[in-house]
Amino acid sequence: MNSLIDRLISAFGRLPGIGARSAERLAHHILKAPEAEALELADAIRLAKQRIRHCTTCFHLTEADEPVCAICRDPRRDSSLICVVEQPRDLIALEASGSYGGVYHVLLGRLAPLQGIGPDQLTLEALVRRVESGPVQEIILATNPNLEGDSTALLVAQRLSASGVRITRLARGLASGSQLEFANKEMLADALSGRQPWNR
Amino acid sequence: MNSLIDRLISAFGRLPGIGARSAERLAHHILKAPEAEALELADAIRLAKQRIRHCTTCFHLTEADEPVCAICRDPRRDSSLICVVEQPRDLIALEASGSYGGVYHVLLGRLAPLQGIGPDQLTLEALVRRVESGPVQEIILATNPNLEGDSTALLVAQRLSASGVRITRLARGLASGSQLEFANKEMLADALSGRQPWNR
Repeated sequence: MNSLIDRLISAFGRLPGIGARSAERLAHHILKAPEAEALELADAIRLAKQRIRHCTTCFHLTEADEPVCAICRDPRRDSSLICVVEQPRDLIALEASGSYGGVYHVLLGRLAPLQGIGPDQLTLEALVRRVESGPVQEIILATNPNLEGDSTALLVAQRLSASGVRITRLARGLASGSQLEFANKEMLADALSGRQPWNR
Repeated sequence: MNSLIDRLISAFGRLPGIGARSAERLAHHILKAPEAEALELADAIRLAKQRIRHCTTCFHLTEADEPVCAICRDPRRDSSLICVVEQPRDLIALEASGSYGGVYHVLLGRLAPLQGIGPDQLTLEALVRRVESGPVQEIILATNPNLEGDSTALLVAQRLSASGVRITRLARGLASGSQLEFANKEMLADALSGRQPWNR
């Protein structure tokens, strides 16, 4: 068997969610694909690794020639409102919703003691410094609605409690567009306990 | 949004079987992965495209400094027996079975008129020249057991009929390890019409 093919298959196989059969399929696709298309993927990977860094303020992703990301630099964003998320992907999802005008803080992870991820692996102290040094009015906790996300939110809230800043979290309840009959216990409990006045 | 990330996401998204969500997940994995691991994928793609070519004899994949592949060069292989497959992947699967000692011919496709793939897009004429110029005893048709594979096999058999070489095809019947109750009509028909004497 061809050693360069094996090398390509095993490089694909190290990607998350790509099993042995998919890695083979992707490698053979690369071999059959037009040269330009295949090399575009190689170049995109190389450029992304070389040029994308974390914003020095919020830890979102930014290109290397800009230490501070476009969102933090945007004067139209309300920098007194900080939404705390686990990962850049969460930030991108919130931005795509178009319903948020403040800035962000990316923790770059969530508490996961079993995987050795404690408070020191997160960007929590940088958030504390942001709150202490700037005119921050409110922190919105937007970690994932699961056990690890909730304990991470609790950690952030506790660490910031002395600062006196207002701390909120994203609403929880029924998923818009879902069906009540398929909602699980936790969703229904959230929806009941967080019920809102009609016409509000 | 970050243009280098978008470029990486869209490069992943052009791979077969990778949808928009998977492409995003892979791109963010690359950003989080160790530099060496991410660049290994980029390098493996680049090297594979630059150095892997088709064998000038059988059209299997080979590294560029060897115009003829390792199988065609191997003196222990029976070069009078040629197994005709659609793709390099089929050849690799047959090799992995360890049950074949002849050589191969890769058609680099199968007849698919609706996708504009006719006889001229296959390496059929090169196969005809191999049969005419060498001491070939038998051609084993090993195209896929479906409509397109069967019409491709028929085409190859017709094109070689004048040469007088012996032409066979892979046996068809029940899949080893499968259950009869789940076999479809075609599998059962093949198994019945191809039934073999007990103890053969």
